[in-house]
Amino acid sequence: MNILLLAPFASLAALLFAAYLSYSVMKESEGSAEMVKIAEAIRHGARAYLKRQYAGVAIFFAVMFVVLLVFAYIGYLSYFVSFAFLTGGFFSALSGYIGMTIATNANARTAFAAKKSLNRSLKIAFSSGAVMGLAVVGLGMFHLSFWYYFLDWFYRFLPEAEKIQKITSAMLNFGMGASSMALFARVGGGIYTKAADVGADLVGKVEVGIPEDDPRNPAVIADNVGDNVGDVAGMGADLYESYIGSIVSTTALAVAAGLGIRGVAIPFVVAAVGVLASIIGTFFVKSGEDADQGVLLKALRKGTYVSSLLVVVVSYFLIRNILGVEYIGVFYAMLSGLIAGLLIGFFTEYFTSDTYSPTQKLSATANTGPATVIISGISLGMLSTALPVIIIGIAVLASFYLAGGAESFNMGLFGVGISAVGLLSTLGITLATDAYGPVADNAGGIAEMSHQESEVRERTDALDSLGNTTAATGKGFAIGSAALTALALIVAYKNEVELIAVSVRPDFQFSLSILNPNVLIGLFIGGMLAFIFAAFTMESVGKAAQEIVTEVRRQFKGSKGILDGTVEPDYARCVDICTRAAQREMILPSLMAIIAPILVGVLLGVNGVAGMLAGSTVTGFLLAVMMANSGGAWDNAKKYIEAGNHGGKGSDSHKAAVVGDTVGDPFKDTSGPSINILIKLLCMVSIVFASFVLQNSIF
Amino acid sequence: MNILLLAPFASLAALLFAAYLSYSVMKESEGSAEMVKIAEAIRHGARAYLKRQYAGVAIFFAVMFVVLLVFAYIGYLSYFVSFAFLTGGFFSALSGYIGMTIATNANARTAFAAKKSLNRSLKIAFSSGAVMGLAVVGLGMFHLSFWYYFLDWFYRFLPEAEKIQKITSAMLNFGMGASSMALFARVGGGIYTKAADVGADLVGKVEVGIPEDDPRNPAVIADNVGDNVGDVAGMGADLYESYIGSIVSTTALAVAAGLGIRGVAIPFVVAAVGVLASIIGTFFVKSGEDADQGVLLKALRKGTYVSSLLVVVVSYFLIRNILGVEYIGVFYAMLSGLIAGLLIGFFTEYFTSDTYSPTQKLSATANTGPATVIISGISLGMLSTALPVIIIGIAVLASFYLAGGAESFNMGLFGVGISAVGLLSTLGITLATDAYGPVADNAGGIAEMSHQESEVRERTDALDSLGNTTAATGKGFAIGSAALTALALIVAYKNEVELIAVSVRPDFQFSLSILNPNVLIGLFIGGMLAFIFAAFTMESVGKAAQEIVTEVRRQFKGSKGILDGTVEPDYARCVDICTRAAQREMILPSLMAIIAPILVGVLLGVNGVAGMLAGSTVTGFLLAVMMANSGGAWDNAKKYIEAGNHGGKGSDSHKAAVVGDTVGDPFKDTSGPSINILIKLLCMVSIVFASFVLQNSIF
Repeated sequence: MNILLLAPFASLAALLFAAYLSYSVMKESEGSAEMVKIAEAIRHGARAYLKRQYAGVAIFFAVMFVVLLVFAYIGYLSYFVSFAFLTGGFFSALSGYIGMTIATNANARTAFAAKKSLNRSLKIAFSSGAVMGLAVVGLGMFHLSFWYYFLDWFYRFLPEAEKIQKITSAMLNFGMGASSMALFARVGGGIYTKAADVGADLVGKVEVGIPEDDPRNPAVIADNVGDNVGDVAGMGADLYESYIGSIVSTTALAVAAGLGIRGVAIPFVVAAVGVLASIIGTFFVKSGEDADQGVLLKALRKGTYVSSLLVVVVSYFLIRNILGVEYIGVFYAMLSGLIAGLLIGFFTEYFTSDTYSPTQKLSATANTGPATVIISGISLGMLSTALPVIIIGIAVLASFYLAGGAESFNMGLFGVGISAVGLLSTLGITLATDAYGPVADNAGGIAEMSHQESEVRERTDALDSLGNTTAATGKGFAIGSAALTALALIVAYKNEVELIAVSVRPDFQFSLSILNPNVLIGLFIGGMLAFIFAAFTMESVGKAAQEIVTEVRRQFKGSKGILDGTVEPDYARCVDICTRAAQREMILPSLMAIIAPILVGVLLGVNGVAGMLAGSTVTGFLLAVMMANSGGAWDNAKKYIEAGNHGGKGSDSHKAAVVGDTVGDPFKDTSGPSINILIKLLCMVSIVFASFVLQNSIF
Repeated sequence: MNILLLAPFASLAALLFAAYLSYSVMKESEGSAEMVKIAEAIRHGARAYLKRQYAGVAIFFAVMFVVLLVFAYIGYLSYFVSFAFLTGGFFSALSGYIGMTIATNANARTAFAAKKSLNRSLKIAFSSGAVMGLAVVGLGMFHLSFWYYFLDWFYRFLPEAEKIQKITSAMLNFGMGASSMALFARVGGGIYTKAADVGADLVGKVEVGIPEDDPRNPAVIADNVGDNVGDVAGMGADLYESYIGSIVSTTALAVAAGLGIRGVAIPFVVAAVGVLASIIGTFFVKSGEDADQGVLLKALRKGTYVSSLLVVVVSYFLIRNILGVEYIGVFYAMLSGLIAGLLIGFFTEYFTSDTYSPTQKLSATANTGPATVIISGISLGMLSTALPVIIIGIAVLASFYLAGGAESFNMGLFGVGISAVGLLSTLGITLATDAYGPVADNAGGIAEMSHQESEVRERTDALDSLGNTTAATGKGFAIGSAALTALALIVAYKNEVELIAVSVRPDFQFSLSILNPNVLIGLFIGGMLAFIFAAFTMESVGKAAQEIVTEVRRQFKGSKGILDGTVEPDYARCVDICTRAAQREMILPSLMAIIAPILVGVLLGVNGVAGMLAGSTVTGFLLAVMMANSGGAWDNAKKYIEAGNHGGKGSDSHKAAVVGDTVGDPFKDTSGPSINILIKLLCMVSIVFASFVLQNSIF
């Protein structure tokens, strides 16, 4: 089907445009020798981190590759899965690498451009974000297209219907590589960034009393590296995984719904349209030279809205033409996902931005000390789960019943898949606005460290603050997409199991009632995994931060010159400690995510696994929303106080708010986002080991 | 069936024995005039609270009574439900009243007895706890027996099989009164106790620097009243509800399993045996005159273990005789529930007691300030969900498969119900060890306020500390029983709906697959309700505590004599503020719990309701365990530091630990335990309005 060629075409367009943007960023000046030096240190640290991470991950991938080969040899899997596992990991890693490279090259350039104007500075930062966004969607589409066409050729002698089923079923298994990579990036990056941040603050700000981003702090480079490692590479890998996952699960659901190749084309086409729309959208992100923050925010939003509108209009006609007007419900399913993504983003901002009352009220609780800040922040996060649940609920119901629903259950489920694809269709530009944040943050750090005039610092602060807003929206978007993708994957899992069972266990019948004790216990275990996972990752941040605290104290003690500014601290050591700690600490949670589905499968059967997936999605979604929003609100409540409210900087209220912010750091940047990965990875692992579980479970 | 007469007999025995214990407590001296005066003030405050609560609750019950009558008139319900709603509420309130009365009479007596020996003091406190425990089980059994025999007479002209179905189906609806009352008691009491506690501490300890329980603090009486209101009345109502709920749901499951009257007898008989075993168990709670804390703990435990053993042995023979040896799996189902309760209690203690490493490690994190205490406490709570989930999981699986399982699905579900009954069978004595805690706590307060010599205070401290341990165990027990009871209720809900559907919607068929979008969204909504409910109750504590802070500050400012000790503060005003705040703040969460099942039912149908119930049970259980254990661990981590570790009292570590403790207060005493009620009340309301929802839902 020729329309499918849109996918490789969009992929090529995205990658070429990313290259062009990359070129336009790189040709800007990096500024003074001092700025270059700092930027070089950050780049160096980021590269060192990635190098070590990839080295560690390579071992994991090698082991898993062999395991998958063995499973394939026994007959539990297709050999393709092993190779797709590698390619999936590779492309995810590659998009992370590209994002990090451009971000660490754009930070000083953004700071230097801020000497001229806010708008020029924004443009560089946003362009570097767009490189990341387009690299993710471009490489994702490339990966999927490559395998699709390869399998299409490989199975060329099979009848059409069988071929398409073979292809989608195989591709459904291909997400695990990207998911594993995403877990390492998110968890490792999340631990790294917060260990450096918390560690730097605890000694620098609290004990010694030097400001944030002060070059005398030995952990300052690690802190800046962390922004890139966590927020750029981690976020990119997370959404790369959602992107791949939503598309492959929806193709499988298309086959189950009996739509054949036409149905399989839909997610590819919608995604491809989204890629092109994102490229077009980037041109709308611009403003006059004397723009203020409000105008800049509008400019960023305009890009997203234009892209969304383009996707809606073009998809309407494409879906109508490909499937026929009687299937136009599929379009509305896609639309409901797209709208859900925008709404969740909006409400995330509402709950976490200090321009709205929830965060303002939270900052007022700082007047009665840290305990009330914590209590109110947690309950704010808990309350903020209501709207996202209602939005996701409506999106699922709408997409299910509009696409098929009561008449055709499988069409309805295909609709749920398409809604996830719809939500993620504009990922290219959504991720751009999101990945722009850390670059702005870094730019601020570089401006501070290189002692720029206050005007420059004010501009980078404005960009940074804008980045916080877009980061909040982006986080909501990431969580929403993870939930919808996970739901699509759970459904696809069920279809896949039934498909496998035909040959290996012909008598098998699903019993997915919530009253089946195996399902019920699966629900409990799934929910528990989200809690345990959050606990592990929080603990890890604490441990790693402790190591940084010890090291920074040691350096201050060892050389008086560091605090006088006459001796340069040993930045590399802090980078190294963070890197090692992050690598070490990510092993346990990662293993848990991979072993749990297999263990639960063996003990409780595939019904139990399905229950576990539903449980982890439901509880994980709630927990992720709560942690992200509590954390975001604490961060901004502190900033609101620093802006002069409730006593301002240095007051007791401020100290109380700092406690909230410190608790919020691992909430919003480590545990919360890591849960997104957990819920998808559990699905992916369950799918890959479905055949094994079917044949080896007690039930 | 004559064996059923065991139930009213056990009820009578429990009430008589409670009366005897009550008499033996009351004949002890209340001590000096000062002690009597303080005790009188606490009694007065507690009565004032109860009076106002009952007045408020009476309005609610009157309105609901009319609503239920209207529903009955339209034909959605039996008229019995309206009346049973009243009796359920009445007996729950009565057991709370009895428990409060004896507790507020035993506190000064316990303090006075501590002048003589630790053991005598323990005996009084424990006896008063036993009065509460036995009143709860006695009144519960009386209530159920009364209705059972009344309905048995009322339906006397029906054929046996139809009669028994009518009876159990009607009785299943009778839990809502007790559940509503429990919600008010738990939520209102939880808000009251923590508002008083936090408010008293924030001004007294932190601002003015007077010790805990100092008579100069205007909120000190409210604080002591709060212990009774929250921990005695609230806990009693909670478990009264579980007790009723587990028995009525299991009788309904017995009928569904085709066991008829013999099956219906089982939960009654097991519960009755448990009541008698609890009475016997109380005689084993004794020790020598010079016992230390370890010995006392063993004495308390001995009572529980003896009772459990008795239940196990006697039930084995009774179940064998009633159902026949081929149904002996039912006995093992009961056993698995009983063991699960003990194990959850044990692990709760492990995670929250400062004699074990988790809490000790938590206290060490206080060295790096409040933020790390909060992060580590939350992750401790999250981690501690693992074992309870595994224990509940094994108990459910074991009871399901041992009682029937794959061969007979309905027998398996009956097994799950019986496991809940088994867990709760020894409630009489478990609740006694639990309700003992607040009495000991009050005794300590009275000893302090009446300036007893340090030896007395040491003894009451030892009793109080022992009380913290049993409270932790009791909380685990309460959460575990709530989860199992809720599961039994969900299953009973499904049977009830099918029964109703036969006449009102003959074409109706359940579709409880987790892939049914309505079920799936129900799961999300249920989980969200737990989060929202926790947020509401935490916020309420914050608001109410703020009012107390303002009042205490006002009194200190208004009269210098208060702090000098020459003028008596206005205790009653603080009591009054707490009372009003608790009553006001409990309205919103309560309405939510009652409206949610009806609203979700109308919008998503009974499938959606079932999903919601499962979601709230799973996520609510996790959240309740986490909040209870984080809170308990923070409390004890603080005490561990106060005992001289990590710098001891007054150190920065101690200040950091106090922040954790303050956050933990609403966690463990308000929100966490309230979630227990929420998950059961949602089930109860769903059952009562099942017919309405079936006939009026969109789906």
